[in-house]
Amino acid sequence: MRLRNKPWAPELIAAHPELIATAETSDLAGKWAQRFADPKLPVELEIGSGKGQFIIGMAQAHPEINYIAMELQTPAIGMILKKQLELQLPNLQLFLGDGADLTDFFATNEIQNLYLNFSDPWPKTKHAKRRLTYRTFLNQYHAVLPADGQLRFKTDNQGLFEYSLISLNANQWQFDFISLDLHQSERQEINIETEYEQKFAAKGQVIYALDAHYRTETTS
Amino acid sequence: MRLRNKPWAPELIAAHPELIATAETSDLAGKWAQRFADPKLPVELEIGSGKGQFIIGMAQAHPEINYIAMELQTPAIGMILKKQLELQLPNLQLFLGDGADLTDFFATNEIQNLYLNFSDPWPKTKHAKRRLTYRTFLNQYHAVLPADGQLRFKTDNQGLFEYSLISLNANQWQFDFISLDLHQSERQEINIETEYEQKFAAKGQVIYALDAHYRTETTS
Repeated sequence: MRLRNKPWAPELIAAHPELIATAETSDLAGKWAQRFADPKLPVELEIGSGKGQFIIGMAQAHPEINYIAMELQTPAIGMILKKQLELQLPNLQLFLGDGADLTDFFATNEIQNLYLNFSDPWPKTKHAKRRLTYRTFLNQYHAVLPADGQLRFKTDNQGLFEYSLISLNANQWQFDFISLDLHQSERQEINIETEYEQKFAAKGQVIYALDAHYRTETTS
Repeated sequence: MRLRNKPWAPELIAAHPELIATAETSDLAGKWAQRFADPKLPVELEIGSGKGQFIIGMAQAHPEINYIAMELQTPAIGMILKKQLELQLPNLQLFLGDGADLTDFFATNEIQNLYLNFSDPWPKTKHAKRRLTYRTFLNQYHAVLPADGQLRFKTDNQGLFEYSLISLNANQWQFDFISLDLHQSERQEINIETEYEQKFAAKGQVIYALDAHYRTETTS
């Protein structure tokens, strides 16, 4: 999702370092807990938060968890910041940055669970390396999650979901949950929808979802 | 699929030991190749062949492969036998037997690829052990397949496919192919349909498919 430019966004971001960090903020790794009202809560991260409906909904539904909304696009994260300035959720922090550099910004075990929602499918084979479930990204997630930490992924894109099942399986991730029709599953009761998800599910589009963790033990 | 009783089936089966083996036939393991016109061809096995449309279609399309149709129900395999008596395909053998006892009837590496088509979904959790992608069955498949041998599975049952993805992943199988809509995929060009598949796909039902092999090497 690409948004129109928001000329006010860079200035607003610069004015609120207490709510939003950027790749330029020094020494982020290992210090995220301290940015929240309650530093003892587990931290969860969404990569590619768009306009933030999911992560704000999660932060409201789960006050027992601290959330980080990570987004590469300044206009999008500017819109999340605007909402957060109104809501002042104590368990939500924002981060303007790139998922490809995850280990630069997060320490080992710093993220309890990691969310990918409706990530860009990059349908052409030559762009497979850009998909957020490509091996190099999975290795970054593995590096910041604890042994029981989960990657939680949903998409309406059939090709991306097929690819992701194969990529996770090939790179030693174990599935804890799979739904090939999330909105008709029991999980829907607790599912927080993204803007995009709400719009496309209303048109009858099937939503796919999975949870997986990195398999540390040998299973043979 | 349960068929009406075919009173003629047991007698027909007993009369054609050259075309159909049964669990009572002594010493099957390691000797399947000799039952075919060309014993040098690779052998593929379908577990649960129903009325045989798939395996007969495969045998006709692939004269370079020897096929075994395995089926537990006497009326069903009786119908396949009737067709084979007409067709006299040199690369098709039948077997009246139970997939749970695979290693009693097949030697290590004797089956190059193994097919499961529209297997009984056993939707109740308490019946999970009966699903043909339950761990104990997967171990039997692993025992008869060579290192590069594939399990090839298709179904229209969403719950069974979700379960199978999780079960295969958890038991060290690696996916080589996944389609969440087989009939819209490139694979459909070479897909041989079962009776059931033809009927349900015509109603717009999505067909799921996967190929997987057992992961022998450690991938960490």
